[in-house]
Amino acid sequence: MILSALLTSVGINLGLCLLFFTLYSILRKQPGNRIVYAPRLVEKEKKSQQADFSLERLLPSPGWVRQAWEPSEDELLSTVGLDAVVFMHIFTFSLKVFTVAGIIGITILLPINFLGNQLSYDFSDLPNKSLDSFSISNVDDGSNRLWIHFCAAYVFTGVVCYFLYQEYSYISSKRVSYFYSSKPQPHQFTLLVRGIPGSSRSSFSEVVESFFKDYHPSTYLSHTVIRRTSKIQELTKDAEKLHRRLARLNSNDNSHKRFRRDGFLGIFGRKVDLLDHYGKRLEALQDNVRMEQSSLAGKEVAAAFVSFNSRYGAAIALHIQQGVNPTEWVTEQAPAPQDVHWPFFSSSFMKRWICKLAVVVACIALTILFLIPVVIVQGLTHLDQLETWFPFLKGVLNLFISRLCCHNASDDLEVPSIPYHSEIPRVIFSVLLGITYFFLAPLILPFLLVYYCLGYIIYRNQLLNVYAPKFETGGKFWPIVHNSTIFSLLLMHVIAIGIFGLKKLPLASSLVIPLPVLTLLFNEYCRKRFLPIFEAYPTECLVKKDREDQNDATMAEFYEKLVTAYQDPALMPVQYSGSSDGRTSPLLHAANV
Amino acid sequence: MILSALLTSVGINLGLCLLFFTLYSILRKQPGNRIVYAPRLVEKEKKSQQADFSLERLLPSPGWVRQAWEPSEDELLSTVGLDAVVFMHIFTFSLKVFTVAGIIGITILLPINFLGNQLSYDFSDLPNKSLDSFSISNVDDGSNRLWIHFCAAYVFTGVVCYFLYQEYSYISSKRVSYFYSSKPQPHQFTLLVRGIPGSSRSSFSEVVESFFKDYHPSTYLSHTVIRRTSKIQELTKDAEKLHRRLARLNSNDNSHKRFRRDGFLGIFGRKVDLLDHYGKRLEALQDNVRMEQSSLAGKEVAAAFVSFNSRYGAAIALHIQQGVNPTEWVTEQAPAPQDVHWPFFSSSFMKRWICKLAVVVACIALTILFLIPVVIVQGLTHLDQLETWFPFLKGVLNLFISRLCCHNASDDLEVPSIPYHSEIPRVIFSVLLGITYFFLAPLILPFLLVYYCLGYIIYRNQLLNVYAPKFETGGKFWPIVHNSTIFSLLLMHVIAIGIFGLKKLPLASSLVIPLPVLTLLFNEYCRKRFLPIFEAYPTECLVKKDREDQNDATMAEFYEKLVTAYQDPALMPVQYSGSSDGRTSPLLHAANV
Repeated sequence: MILSALLTSVGINLGLCLLFFTLYSILRKQPGNRIVYAPRLVEKEKKSQQADFSLERLLPSPGWVRQAWEPSEDELLSTVGLDAVVFMHIFTFSLKVFTVAGIIGITILLPINFLGNQLSYDFSDLPNKSLDSFSISNVDDGSNRLWIHFCAAYVFTGVVCYFLYQEYSYISSKRVSYFYSSKPQPHQFTLLVRGIPGSSRSSFSEVVESFFKDYHPSTYLSHTVIRRTSKIQELTKDAEKLHRRLARLNSNDNSHKRFRRDGFLGIFGRKVDLLDHYGKRLEALQDNVRMEQSSLAGKEVAAAFVSFNSRYGAAIALHIQQGVNPTEWVTEQAPAPQDVHWPFFSSSFMKRWICKLAVVVACIALTILFLIPVVIVQGLTHLDQLETWFPFLKGVLNLFISRLCCHNASDDLEVPSIPYHSEIPRVIFSVLLGITYFFLAPLILPFLLVYYCLGYIIYRNQLLNVYAPKFETGGKFWPIVHNSTIFSLLLMHVIAIGIFGLKKLPLASSLVIPLPVLTLLFNEYCRKRFLPIFEAYPTECLVKKDREDQNDATMAEFYEKLVTAYQDPALMPVQYSGSSDGRTSPLLHAANV
Repeated sequence: MILSALLTSVGINLGLCLLFFTLYSILRKQPGNRIVYAPRLVEKEKKSQQADFSLERLLPSPGWVRQAWEPSEDELLSTVGLDAVVFMHIFTFSLKVFTVAGIIGITILLPINFLGNQLSYDFSDLPNKSLDSFSISNVDDGSNRLWIHFCAAYVFTGVVCYFLYQEYSYISSKRVSYFYSSKPQPHQFTLLVRGIPGSSRSSFSEVVESFFKDYHPSTYLSHTVIRRTSKIQELTKDAEKLHRRLARLNSNDNSHKRFRRDGFLGIFGRKVDLLDHYGKRLEALQDNVRMEQSSLAGKEVAAAFVSFNSRYGAAIALHIQQGVNPTEWVTEQAPAPQDVHWPFFSSSFMKRWICKLAVVVACIALTILFLIPVVIVQGLTHLDQLETWFPFLKGVLNLFISRLCCHNASDDLEVPSIPYHSEIPRVIFSVLLGITYFFLAPLILPFLLVYYCLGYIIYRNQLLNVYAPKFETGGKFWPIVHNSTIFSLLLMHVIAIGIFGLKKLPLASSLVIPLPVLTLLFNEYCRKRFLPIFEAYPTECLVKKDREDQNDATMAEFYEKLVTAYQDPALMPVQYSGSSDGRTSPLLHAANV
């Protein structure tokens, strides 16, 4: 690519940015768009704003950018949760890294590259100059100027590691304080126990009860044995379908009731017949569901949710192998009740096994797919080729990393639909690319910086207005960001070793080798120092939090709820309003047992 | 190597075996040798047997072979511990494997190899025939007979995996029952806690006390903070040296006392002066030691032995991260009191760090050293070359594997001196070689079988008479045997794939590929099913054992001892008998505080 082409591209992109910025500024002020740009506020206020027309509404104004900066981190934390704040930290971290990289790259590396003579271009025709003359390729072979690149690699690695340490330390401390400030939640007190050993004399429920009463007498609270409910689930699905059809028929014509009441058998006769027919079928289905629900005694699965009266009690049973046979009494942290993927428990062993196998195969395939383009992309220094490769990589990475960071107790089958979760891989990949290219082509850095700034502004503004957290990992995905950054640093080192070799400066090549070793040692330290807090909470936190709860008057109520928290929805009493009068009432009445 | 040479070698070896067998049978009957061949019996009987001379004593008799078979496994278990029994199982397992390999190899593979025509030798001159004609090299390229080798690989792998499963299952169950039958031992109740956070207001001892009383109120028993005692250790060493010198001077001449008592200043005058001089120096040293011991308040190390009143209590603190900062309150299972390497705690951080680094470097170097000869040996099919390579490999492996299997709380610096521990690598390596060669040269198998039989017989006999267990791992080294066998199976598969390729039977090559995959799956299953019991005991075992103890009257006494079990020997009161009268009395009086 030549310089003039790059500048044209920059111009077009900046123009588009300005256009979208203006459009956004105007559109977000229209009352009708409020539900799109600030659904949280709409929900809060429970009424649409007065639709007074004013000229101000049609003028773009950057006030929202200032607004975006107003809420402090603590406010954000309490409103949108830790995950959103950690995601914001990915932005600020990247911005910091790109600022440092940009300063070093533009003020030091770029002039040195440009002053090289390796690629003998015509100096007079600057606009048509290839971008290669700004890259390291233009530095003369064996030139002592390469030692400045060498120093830059060391300085940049040091600075990035310092930022990484700072962020890891900050986020892990936030994670602990977030735990302290969290309300008691059922999944903190509950374990999913698999591999309950069968007994000819007693049911799984009795076996679980006696085991935990025996070995955890002071902490065991209650349990819910999981039952095979696939048949009920099917029946319920059918009933719901039927009920929806009935409701549709009803809403299509609200007057039919009148006719039926009068005994009039006219044009609506067929419809009334249909309604009666569906109503009877629905009632029959409901009876079937109730019958199935009452005959579940023999359909217990060798798995149960076991609740404890303290978080620490649950942690003890989680971290220590329970039975002599390690394939029995396998414990894992329970997911939140609403995240449980119930049909999974009812499916056959074969189906689950195939699902797991499919996940493994997909992971391997995606890793290979990920490696091939990365290797190829690393060999490219031309921006135009990069642009061709980007969309494909983005898709693959989206799939691959989102599976890694959103894994869930339902055995990775359910991926929560949170907007920023799918953004993480994209952001990470840009960091990866930015760091790697710091060395090769510093010209790319200012563009990345601008792109990140814009992304950050829009993310901050939307955050409070749009996002309502449904699923909270407590910033558990930060280690992925950390590892990706370390990986891209290592990649940079490998490239540096290769380039110094090609540029006939073997001494620099060998002197770079300590850098990846030091980076790995730093990573190892971080892994020891911070990672454990992202995996499980320590005794100190758990016991402190449990003691706080002891003084809390609402805990008795919480325990009552906890006992029935893990109830399969298929086992709850169903009541579709069967009478013809109530057909437009709420679809499904479900009450706790 | 040619057949006649092999047979000569076999003849010489068998002759030597017979000679040693006869010599052993005679020598072990001589009363004077009893202390060598049966030290345990001598210790038990506390008197030497009557030295009546009889002709029977000079005749070799195989009675001891029968004797070796007499004790049942349970008897062995109760007398010499689980480690010895597990070591015996390495023998029986190898014997089973070699028997199966021998039967398949000699009756099926050997004739097929011999009937091949690939190596066109002269049939008439059998004694000068190369051993290669008995190996797979002699089978014709692309011959369908190779499919028999293919089947043999599958059958043999299946049988070995079956044996492996059987042994793993048996030994892990023995490990559990051994734990149940074990007496309470201090290290079962104690953890080594490192990284105690410092406090300006209180000592480490107070910090430990308050932390464990706070977070483990119902299970915490006591603690011993470790102190820097390197100076005392040096002084004590000097004192002991001096005391030994004094004792030597005393024993050289027992009559000098008489002279001195009479005030006689004659030929022994100088000696008496020397004795006085040494005595004074010893007393000064003793005073120094006592002074150092009393001024240890400020020399606490950020590590302590913390004891709990139950095994389960210790396990809870072991398995769950304690502090918010994972580099603080790091817990690990304590070693037995007599296995603690006290000087290690007093050494500087730098020294420990260098020690660890040295261990890592040595491990890497040895792994490389191990890989090179293995790769080379695998390429050799000539027995004479193997013999050249054996001694070197044996030495390297001895070093390498004994470090792996005898690691210890004293950070791998102390390797317990148990005879069979150093034998393990040798035995494992033979298994590895035997399995790998099953396929290539079945002729080697009968010799391995005989060698193992002899080894087994001698091991069994010596076991009860010679071996007194000092250090018991509870058969913790079995997983190494298991993994080595799996490794050699995989090696065999790789060789099979290569050989079928070279022999122009690519279909067989590709059909062997599922075999290593299945073997790895089998290994994975075993790792899940059996390995955890070799790493830590589960809740079920710990709680059961703790409850048993509650009914044991001797536990109160045990707890009393436990409190002082982890006392640095350097801190115990020293008293070298300073008076000239008592110079030949026991060297060191040490009493508990």
